[in-house]
Amino acid sequence: MQKVDVGKKILSANERYALKNRQFLAEREKVCLNMISSPGSGKTTILSRTISDLKDKIKIGVIEGDIQTDLDAERIKATGAPAIQINTAGACHLSAAQIDTALRNLPVDDLDLIFIENVGNLVCPSAFELGETAKIVVLSVPEGDDKPAKYPAIFAKSKVLLINKIDLLGAGSHVDFDVERARADARRLNKSIEVFPISAKTGKGMHSWYNWLLESAEDILS
Amino acid sequence: MQKVDVGKKILSANERYALKNRQFLAEREKVCLNMISSPGSGKTTILSRTISDLKDKIKIGVIEGDIQTDLDAERIKATGAPAIQINTAGACHLSAAQIDTALRNLPVDDLDLIFIENVGNLVCPSAFELGETAKIVVLSVPEGDDKPAKYPAIFAKSKVLLINKIDLLGAGSHVDFDVERARADARRLNKSIEVFPISAKTGKGMHSWYNWLLESAEDILS
Repeated sequence: MQKVDVGKKILSANERYALKNRQFLAEREKVCLNMISSPGSGKTTILSRTISDLKDKIKIGVIEGDIQTDLDAERIKATGAPAIQINTAGACHLSAAQIDTALRNLPVDDLDLIFIENVGNLVCPSAFELGETAKIVVLSVPEGDDKPAKYPAIFAKSKVLLINKIDLLGAGSHVDFDVERARADARRLNKSIEVFPISAKTGKGMHSWYNWLLESAEDILS
Repeated sequence: MQKVDVGKKILSANERYALKNRQFLAEREKVCLNMISSPGSGKTTILSRTISDLKDKIKIGVIEGDIQTDLDAERIKATGAPAIQINTAGACHLSAAQIDTALRNLPVDDLDLIFIENVGNLVCPSAFELGETAKIVVLSVPEGDDKPAKYPAIFAKSKVLLINKIDLLGAGSHVDFDVERARADARRLNKSIEVFPISAKTGKGMHSWYNWLLESAEDILS
């Protein structure tokens, strides 16, 4: 006879909101991707370029999480996409209740895909489900190729690893980063993770990320 | 008549350990610096170079905080300095109780200065006092010059801001970072913060940081 863990049946407030968000998105057949990384890995630059390059193919909206300022939402709005800024006022991650509010303030019915840009933090956001379709982790090459080994949780939970700022690699560069080491360490934690080395600044490698995005959106929306 | 806030008189467990650590260090006249930054800003490289360059002037020990692995403590030990690795097993910051244990395992009486390298996280470690003499925040230029505005707490609380990886700036670089903007934003939060632009890789700017370190240690130890 299996023991039933009663504790598991009681959802936390965050889990209840996450479930509500998941249902809200599923009913409307919308894809929602929760993007997580250290501060300054280039999340907003990746999103701005992705929105601009795919604007004729897919309608994207963004929920921006920051401790303070609305600098990132302003950058997204400059692309023409709708963006909602959430300020966490010190908190180190977004909560599902904040996403619930944001979803009600975005023109969700007009969108295909919603990105959540979480607070810059490679640790805490990985522990809070927001009701997203999938998590995307971004690691920029100046941060070092040891990060999957040192911060395993988010690499274990993400569908995609974007290795950003690869324009900083190459002959004469001061940045040492072994893409194969990072990929192998991430795959040890998560054998199905998709890994795309990109430069959101120069555009290098972005086409593979776009293909994944369009195919995933199609799979989910079909 | 002033109201007495009874709540303030009751210390949290972390605050009690922080006070204990502060007393332990004060009795022994040791300086302890709590280094905080995003993952991959170069904390371990800064420490390794600082230890090697100052080895004839000052005896340094290190407490390394990481979620997993002992990669950083091994890098510190390669310089010949004593290092204690703490694995937080998922927790996003070091606690004062962990520092209490580590201090008992370091040869503190043989040291002048103890660095704590906190978990890579620009948010949570700023909220947990460890009993340190001062906090040092590290911001690397690939992270962007908007970080003091977006993550203000740690910049408001630190004695020193090290702007690392300045070797990535300059003509032909793909990294945009306005040192003066970062400095001005940090000073708006904390008018007495010392700002040292450095490259721990090439050594550029490190002498000013060393001077501050030696003078501060002397002030505290004298």
